[in-house]
Amino acid sequence: MEKTVRAHTNIALIKYWGKADAKLRLPLMSSLSMTLDQFYTDTRVVKSDQDRFFLNGSEQTGSSKQRVFDYLHVLQKRLGQTGHLRVESTNHVPTAAGLASSSSAFAALAGAFCAYYKLEVSRKELSRLARLGSGSASRSIYGGFAIWQKGTDDASSYAYALDEKPKLDLQLLAVELNQQPKFLSSTGGMSQAPSSPFFQPWLARNQEELAAMTKAIQDNDFSRLGQLAELNANEMHAINLTAAPGFTYFEPATIAAIKLVQKIRASGIECYYTIDAGPNVKILCQLKNVKEITKQFVSEFENAKIVMQSFGPGISYLD
Amino acid sequence: MEKTVRAHTNIALIKYWGKADAKLRLPLMSSLSMTLDQFYTDTRVVKSDQDRFFLNGSEQTGSSKQRVFDYLHVLQKRLGQTGHLRVESTNHVPTAAGLASSSSAFAALAGAFCAYYKLEVSRKELSRLARLGSGSASRSIYGGFAIWQKGTDDASSYAYALDEKPKLDLQLLAVELNQQPKFLSSTGGMSQAPSSPFFQPWLARNQEELAAMTKAIQDNDFSRLGQLAELNANEMHAINLTAAPGFTYFEPATIAAIKLVQKIRASGIECYYTIDAGPNVKILCQLKNVKEITKQFVSEFENAKIVMQSFGPGISYLD
Repeated sequence: MEKTVRAHTNIALIKYWGKADAKLRLPLMSSLSMTLDQFYTDTRVVKSDQDRFFLNGSEQTGSSKQRVFDYLHVLQKRLGQTGHLRVESTNHVPTAAGLASSSSAFAALAGAFCAYYKLEVSRKELSRLARLGSGSASRSIYGGFAIWQKGTDDASSYAYALDEKPKLDLQLLAVELNQQPKFLSSTGGMSQAPSSPFFQPWLARNQEELAAMTKAIQDNDFSRLGQLAELNANEMHAINLTAAPGFTYFEPATIAAIKLVQKIRASGIECYYTIDAGPNVKILCQLKNVKEITKQFVSEFENAKIVMQSFGPGISYLD
Repeated sequence: MEKTVRAHTNIALIKYWGKADAKLRLPLMSSLSMTLDQFYTDTRVVKSDQDRFFLNGSEQTGSSKQRVFDYLHVLQKRLGQTGHLRVESTNHVPTAAGLASSSSAFAALAGAFCAYYKLEVSRKELSRLARLGSGSASRSIYGGFAIWQKGTDDASSYAYALDEKPKLDLQLLAVELNQQPKFLSSTGGMSQAPSSPFFQPWLARNQEELAAMTKAIQDNDFSRLGQLAELNANEMHAINLTAAPGFTYFEPATIAAIKLVQKIRASGIECYYTIDAGPNVKILCQLKNVKEITKQFVSEFENAKIVMQSFGPGISYLD
């Protein structure tokens, strides 16, 4: 049962940005994501006489290995398993893409762990286990659209599929403006965010935003989905700006990209942006407009790398 | 009594950003400002056989003249005066400074109007009259720090002096990054701002923010004043970002300037920023650090124009 497990990265349209419990990775809000087709991680867990971690063929040491094995030891303890493990991962995420790959990495790792120990777990259970490695990984168990319900404890905090085969014409252009490592980790940003006077009002809106986004998806309403996603991302960055002290993941190029999205939209080509804990932007659009939007971004940002994405599948077992 | 009246511009440390009544210019929140010493407007109203408006020696027509005379006709009607007027104004604001001069312009105009008609009005009354021309002008009647209490109607909405001769060592560096006219007027931005989900929570904080800023001023606490001013400005821009639809006055250079303030501060040189309805930034600092901060800004922003300011006086009559 030494299977290679594949999980795709996901991008939150309703963001996860605050922890209720750092150790269990319980979130302060529910989140909703789109699983992507182009970025994914393949991971295999095999028997070993010592703990080893290979990423893209290179053995990893230090904090990268540490985080993986801290996580695996949590899973072993929780599931009554023992033994040294060798983890082999391949990240099919352009290294320069600046897109966090922890969602696919920990979802694939959770799946490969269970496969190695022949543990039969439901996808709901797998989502809970993935959550312990990285919150966003809980959503990468599913394809299409997934919701991570915040829950109230370890048992009730997991993701489920909202629509694994969406009919909606939704494309995501991952625009990498800056390849620098982010100046503040997601964990760091999340820990500062609650100091914003707008954080509690934002939390109070979470169910309403989630319901509105769910309805937009059910109605195949691209415009509404885009508006809601852009607002939610803006809320997250407004929270950061008003934290004590304020901070921002925006770089000058981020503002230029926001203005370009606004300009393209004003010209009649519908598109929206979402932005995570970094300077890069993801553009939500429809297939018919991908070419023109890409052209305009390439024209304004000479060095930007753009990857077109649509819906990816849930976790899969390659053999 | 054809006196020339001088009024100085002011910068809000607690912002005015929303109207309860557009015609009467009643605000949704109270605001607090610092009157500047370097930027001011001199205005004289004299008898004329037709309404004419001269700015910096050039006769104005169109919307510029229209706004001035719409305002003067409101004052005439309210105060029972008649007759054509000739207005002569000189703006001692570097044209390229990008600093709104409407606060000094309408304060000086209100003063010159009253002088022309020999109306004896208190400063409180003059503040109310100036408010009818431009909300922020209500604060330019006073020097040092002024508070514009929002009030509930025309009679109760006026500014008063908080401290006209502050002992606080507070310098303001007006950094002009961009000379383009702003893409959205203050009036336009203010009308969109209330659509933000964070607008009501922000309003709910107004009295608390005002009290904290007042205490910082009374305590001569530069650090606290700077922190509060920066937070309040960030709140205003967070409101704009999360409006429906979101918008921002930030330009790429604004983000670069914010990051430079953060960097200088992290290096141990205390400074804070405030930003109004435009891309330019105003840096709050102490005298001992003006030189170093200016040096660093000039070094990063080759084309930036920087004007050092401190406290200006209230309205004055030159004769």
